Amino acid sequence: VKSVLCRRTYFQCVHKYVSPLLSEKENLSEFGACYTPHGHGHNYTLDAYVEGQVDSVTGMVINLRDLDLALREAVQILDHKHLNFEVAAFKECIPTTENIAAFLYSSLKKTLQNYPVTLNRIRLYESEDLWVDYFE
Amino acid sequence: VKSVLCRRTYFQCVHKYVSPLLSEKENLSEFGACYTPHGHGHNYTLDAYVEGQVDSVTGMVINLRDLDLALREAVQILDHKHLNFEVAAFKECIPTTENIAAFLYSSLKKTLQNYPVTLNRIRLYESEDLWVDYFE
Amino acid sequence: VKSVLCRRTYFQCVHKYVSPLLSEKENLSEFGACYTPHGHGHNYTLDAYVEGQVDSVTGMVINLRDLDLALREAVQILDHKHLNFEVAAFKECIPTTENIAAFLYSSLKKTLQNYPVTLNRIRLYESEDLWVDYFE
Amino acid sequence: VKSVLCRRTYFQCVHKYVSPLLSEKENLSEFGACYTPHGHGHNYTLDAYVEGQVDSVTGMVINLRDLDLALREAVQILDHKHLNFEVAAFKECIPTTENIAAFLYSSLKKTLQNYPVTLNRIRLYESEDLWVDYFE
Amino acid sequence: VKSVLCRRTYFQCVHKYVSPLLSEKENLSEFGACYTPHGHGHNYTLDAYVEGQVDSVTGMVINLRDLDLALREAVQILDHKHLNFEVAAFKECIPTTENIAAFLYSSLKKTLQNYPVTLNRIRLYESEDLWVDYFE
Amino acid sequence: VKSVLCRRTYFQCVHKYVSPLLSEKENLSEFGACYTPHGHGHNYTLDAYVEGQVDSVTGMVINLRDLDLALREAVQILDHKHLNFEVAAFKECIPTTENIAAFLYSSLKKTLQNYPVTLNRIRLYESEDLWVDYFE
Repeated sequence: VKSVLCRRTYFQCVHKYVSPLLSEKENLSEFGACYTPHGHGHNYTLDAYVEGQVDSVTGMVINLRDLDLALREAVQILDHKHLNFEVAAFKECIPTTENIAAFLYSSLKKTLQNYPVTLNRIRLYESEDLWVDYFE
Repeated sequence: VKSVLCRRTYFQCVHKYVSPLLSEKENLSEFGACYTPHGHGHNYTLDAYVEGQVDSVTGMVINLRDLDLALREAVQILDHKHLNFEVAAFKECIPTTENIAAFLYSSLKKTLQNYPVTLNRIRLYESEDLWVDYFE
Repeated sequence: VKSVLCRRTYFQCVHKYVSPLLSEKENLSEFGACYTPHGHGHNYTLDAYVEGQVDSVTGMVINLRDLDLALREAVQILDHKHLNFEVAAFKECIPTTENIAAFLYSSLKKTLQNYPVTLNRIRLYESEDLWVDYFE
Repeated sequence: VKSVLCRRTYFQCVHKYVSPLLSEKENLSEFGACYTPHGHGHNYTLDAYVEGQVDSVTGMVINLRDLDLALREAVQILDHKHLNFEVAAFKECIPTTENIAAFLYSSLKKTLQNYPVTLNRIRLYESEDLWVDYFE
Repeated sequence: VKSVLCRRTYFQCVHKYVSPLLSEKENLSEFGACYTPHGHGHNYTLDAYVEGQVDSVTGMVINLRDLDLALREAVQILDHKHLNFEVAAFKECIPTTENIAAFLYSSLKKTLQNYPVTLNRIRLYESEDLWVDYFE
Repeated sequence: VKSVLCRRTYFQCVHKYVSPLLSEKENLSEFGACYTPHGHGHNYTLDAYVEGQVDSVTGMVINLRDLDLALREAVQILDHKHLNFEVAAFKECIPTTENIAAFLYSSLKKTLQNYPVTLNRIRLYESEDLWVDYFE
């Protein structure tokens, strides 16, 4: 039997929206309140969907301890960070929800490589009324 | 990179369940508490999933301001209305969650035509324990 | 030992805001989108806080079955109704959250009279971001 | 028009994680806090997605009363039970979320056989941060 | 300045409602589905409200690390346990939400004795629609 | 009739925990992950409880439009800001939830002065499991 398991986790960070390809006026027009010198922050919620065979002995697709470790490894690169200033991937790429989701998908896929599940997709909430689904 | 973004919005309206093709007894038997002269209402929650290419400059599939305008345009036809009495589409079609979802999908698809995203699907909640997914 | 127990319940109804003491222009200015001919509706959430002695045999202040009956009796006067048209109390009194809360408090206090608890207070949610606390 | 309707329902039960194929030490290492003599419990949340044609008279894919009956029939086998001790299916199969989801999917599929909808998939929440999607 | 800080935490356990002072028939009549041989379980949510002076250097009434330790110490007596079988306090006292709340209040008050805050009150949720407020 | 009305609103900002009175080692030991050069952020939720007489004509303690304006005025000082760098009040005072709550209470009390309600208390959520109640 195959099963898709989802684990939710949380992290907090800061971002600001500014493009070096746009003038100050264009940045302000495009990004409004998100174009600020120091940025603003969110409580992000990450849902990671993994799929695999249900182990006939343990009844699980993956031990939750392992899944939590893999998630923590992927999330800690961003947690309690100012994305624009402290995370290499967002030095030249605006940390929108779309881009953070793509980054987390790719990180998590790597950290899950040694586990018996594959990453099905992720959902990243910036707030209760805005989120991104990312999958391949 | 492609991404699916979802935006949640809210509206409130009134509906009642009554079919002109059924007798009063049949209406009552079919619709129970929902077959009332004046109707009852809900806080509806609409989740609109749109997909598109992530713009390499802005990092977004669509500017949230635009998406909110498109959503508002589709939702305002129903918001604070008595669906049976005030919305043409529900004069001869019972405003069940199934039918409201189909109506909103079609409205939203139209209002999004001039934007760089396509409507992937919508989810319409009538309450926390009842909702409809609508897509093509 | 004394304890305060709270039970949450749900109901749906319709209301519209119109005062016979105001002109049409004044009604519109005061009530905006809530001043409509047919009204709009909500999923209301009612939290009833009751207090009493914890029974030393059962460990409860009141049997949940009894509390649910009392709540149902108070709530069913409003559930699936158009408050302005179908509920006597709101024929001359605008069914705002403030007034519905006062009405429910008074109804529930009566229905609880034969039970070993007293009504401490109620909370009535019109939506997730608007509610009224009512107590004496 | 086709539509996917989802109904959420709740149940509570007890489970413990222990495999007869593992030694006590292996059980403890594999299942940690979930390997206890008497087990622990959860408020489970079940989302059942059903799909069907929207009936042109009623505007529904299925009458909610019927869907609720079918759901109740499937859920009551587990509700308020100790899964390991009181439910035959879990005498030799560990009641993990993965396995409970597979069991509920199969039960619900059977109870829905006489209704005009087919089971699309289910989602089973063990808690707010852990759930399983099950489908065929 | 004085402040009331609240921290939410979670635990899962099992309980069953049975009184040695009642006959089997009376137990069944009083407790219904909660009177079962093995019990059922819940995801409990505990909100602990503590109050104290805001420290002028740290800006906190208590360091969250300390509060979490105190909470964990109080909660772990119940977490992943069958209350009737494994917790001394509930050998002769039915583990209703009322009684568990009183127990947790008293435990937490003790574990907080060496910290610069006092326990203001607790709220214990058995489910989203049932909870108890306990205070002195 | 008197009534207590509560309105929920949202804002996002950045904070970091650092005290000029503590050494780097002490700051790190006291504040851990919250002592970072650029800070991290949250989606804050503010619940403002106001009380007043229910107006016999309108049925309200205050028009929601007015309450929303007053709330917006108090909240916009913090919204989308880095509290330590951009808000005068937090230049020398660590923006903990305790201190932000005190600041918002005082701001909101002022902005409500010309309205027929008084501020009863506020609740400020930093996340779903941590909040502060502030009142006088």
